[in-house]
Amino acid sequence: MLRGFSIMSTKRRVAIIGSGNWGSTIGKIVGNNVLNLENFEDEVRMWVYEEIVNGKKLTEIINTSHENIKYLPGIKLPFNLIADPDLANCTKDADVLLFVLPHQFLAKACDIIKPVLKSGAYGCSLIKGLDEKPGVGVRLLTDLIRERLQIPCAVLMGANLAGEVSQEMFCEATVASLDLVRGKELKSLFQTPYFRVSVIKDEVGAELCGALKNIVAIGAGLAHGLGYGDNTKAAIIRLGFMEMKKFIFEFFAPLESTFLESCGVADLITTCYGGRNRKIGIALAETEKPVTALEGERLGGQSAQGVLTAAEVYSMLSSKRLDHQFPIFTIIHLICQRKAQADTFISCLRNHPEHL
Amino acid sequence: MLRGFSIMSTKRRVAIIGSGNWGSTIGKIVGNNVLNLENFEDEVRMWVYEEIVNGKKLTEIINTSHENIKYLPGIKLPFNLIADPDLANCTKDADVLLFVLPHQFLAKACDIIKPVLKSGAYGCSLIKGLDEKPGVGVRLLTDLIRERLQIPCAVLMGANLAGEVSQEMFCEATVASLDLVRGKELKSLFQTPYFRVSVIKDEVGAELCGALKNIVAIGAGLAHGLGYGDNTKAAIIRLGFMEMKKFIFEFFAPLESTFLESCGVADLITTCYGGRNRKIGIALAETEKPVTALEGERLGGQSAQGVLTAAEVYSMLSSKRLDHQFPIFTIIHLICQRKAQADTFISCLRNHPEHL
Repeated sequence: MLRGFSIMSTKRRVAIIGSGNWGSTIGKIVGNNVLNLENFEDEVRMWVYEEIVNGKKLTEIINTSHENIKYLPGIKLPFNLIADPDLANCTKDADVLLFVLPHQFLAKACDIIKPVLKSGAYGCSLIKGLDEKPGVGVRLLTDLIRERLQIPCAVLMGANLAGEVSQEMFCEATVASLDLVRGKELKSLFQTPYFRVSVIKDEVGAELCGALKNIVAIGAGLAHGLGYGDNTKAAIIRLGFMEMKKFIFEFFAPLESTFLESCGVADLITTCYGGRNRKIGIALAETEKPVTALEGERLGGQSAQGVLTAAEVYSMLSSKRLDHQFPIFTIIHLICQRKAQADTFISCLRNHPEHL
Repeated sequence: MLRGFSIMSTKRRVAIIGSGNWGSTIGKIVGNNVLNLENFEDEVRMWVYEEIVNGKKLTEIINTSHENIKYLPGIKLPFNLIADPDLANCTKDADVLLFVLPHQFLAKACDIIKPVLKSGAYGCSLIKGLDEKPGVGVRLLTDLIRERLQIPCAVLMGANLAGEVSQEMFCEATVASLDLVRGKELKSLFQTPYFRVSVIKDEVGAELCGALKNIVAIGAGLAHGLGYGDNTKAAIIRLGFMEMKKFIFEFFAPLESTFLESCGVADLITTCYGGRNRKIGIALAETEKPVTALEGERLGGQSAQGVLTAAEVYSMLSSKRLDHQFPIFTIIHLICQRKAQADTFISCLRNHPEHL
């Protein structure tokens, strides 16, 4: 296809904004997929926050050894996935912007992208979290993208622990896109024989499920740390799921069917049996240390998104005096803040509104 | 309350038909609860299939040491729970019959109960399985009870691994009873601070969820045995859940809300992470032995209910040429029968109808 002339091409381009374990895993998938998509450039740029690893720049390591030795060691990345430390350069020609960076860096990233944004570009967020807007309550991270960049923004959510996806173990995922043409394009970028993508329209429901399940996962970890078994964990998953539904229906307008997609119940289950938020829950049951210390000890300094999300959700619920209707969300926030004992968690389940 | 005159009493009586680990656990709960229920006799009779353990009759052991040392060792049973080897004697005065025996003994048990059945008595089934009626397809076990005894029959289902419930670890359960007076009475018999009971009306949906989830749990075990992780397991749980719903809606008339009760999604999750059916799935992935040999080796000769249920469901689906719409149910049956290799399981998920 005259690849030497690709600089003149009208082919579409993807940029990946973020390069942690999930960003690098998606880089692997998308990098491989575009090689088989006629209407996409082979080159996929991935923005990497530059750091020095073993005396070398991480971008140089990725671009020469095709491995992200810091965040996804042992996984071969495609040769056409190019690490770029310059976010503006990485995104300036991109038609599809995949956001997969820690959510506290998102606003700043949008400000850098804004001046170079290509006309007609759209976003897709892979970030599982919420923003807090003073006076408004919780705000979707995609709304932050939509407002700052004035572009449409879909999401990719699902039961996708990055380590397992990078090893090509079978799983499902959900693309939620109001626009079905974009939904179909995103599916073509993401789907592989081991990563099966369903497309739905409910962007709001999918994104919120992805954020809220992290709170419930802390609860599953708490129960595990307190010595409870699979029955208790299933009860927490179910009651947490009901609170997720109730919260999303209370403040947003999702579709009922979204909750049974991979982004709903399946992601909730996976996160309650594996991942960082569950680990923090176990740690909260085992010690009395503050959560920041536990993130340092147990997560190598990475943050547990559910702690932040619980705080944002609690602030919204308590301002509207609805906290008693969401006992799981509420007690988990209080336990994370060390304002309640870990073992009060189970007693709050005994008289859950779902049992009345 | 003049207990010496209880023989003259008009108080109500409960009989428990079955004394395995789940029957004995329920015996413990109900035995303790009736002591605080004014309208129930203290004495609860539990039918025990007589066997000799350590040179003594199991009924005598239970009635003197108040422990079922064979099926629920280490758990203290209430003094008022009386083991009875004579099924007719056990049930002749009972107003509430709790069925919790292996399903292959159910028809015979009904025939013994029939001549002594007290007028006005009703049943509640705790059995998680299906019956097969030639020419009709699958039949509910409660329909077998209803037809043979001509009594109403509710169910108790939920995310209730017996070992954990007997240790009083927090969990939820679902009573499904068309009649709400009976539903309320059953809740009073079952609920404790660690065993939280919700009452719904959908007897059919609850019973079928309890039976079908055992098939999916074999699939979760297969994935585990094949080396897959939590993402894959969550995909199997979700896709299996969708097949459960589709099957129940195809052949019966459940309520949508039942699937999110403890008897639905929560029981499914628990069974996919613990219990006998999952164990058989793991064994099926690890060896090529027939399932009966695996039940002997891995389950001490107990049967994995999901194997039988899968056969009954497959027979119904294939006779109606619907098997291709239920790839998980179908392949699991074929793997259980050793007509398909265990590793074909994952490939059948890649093009599941849910992904189209």
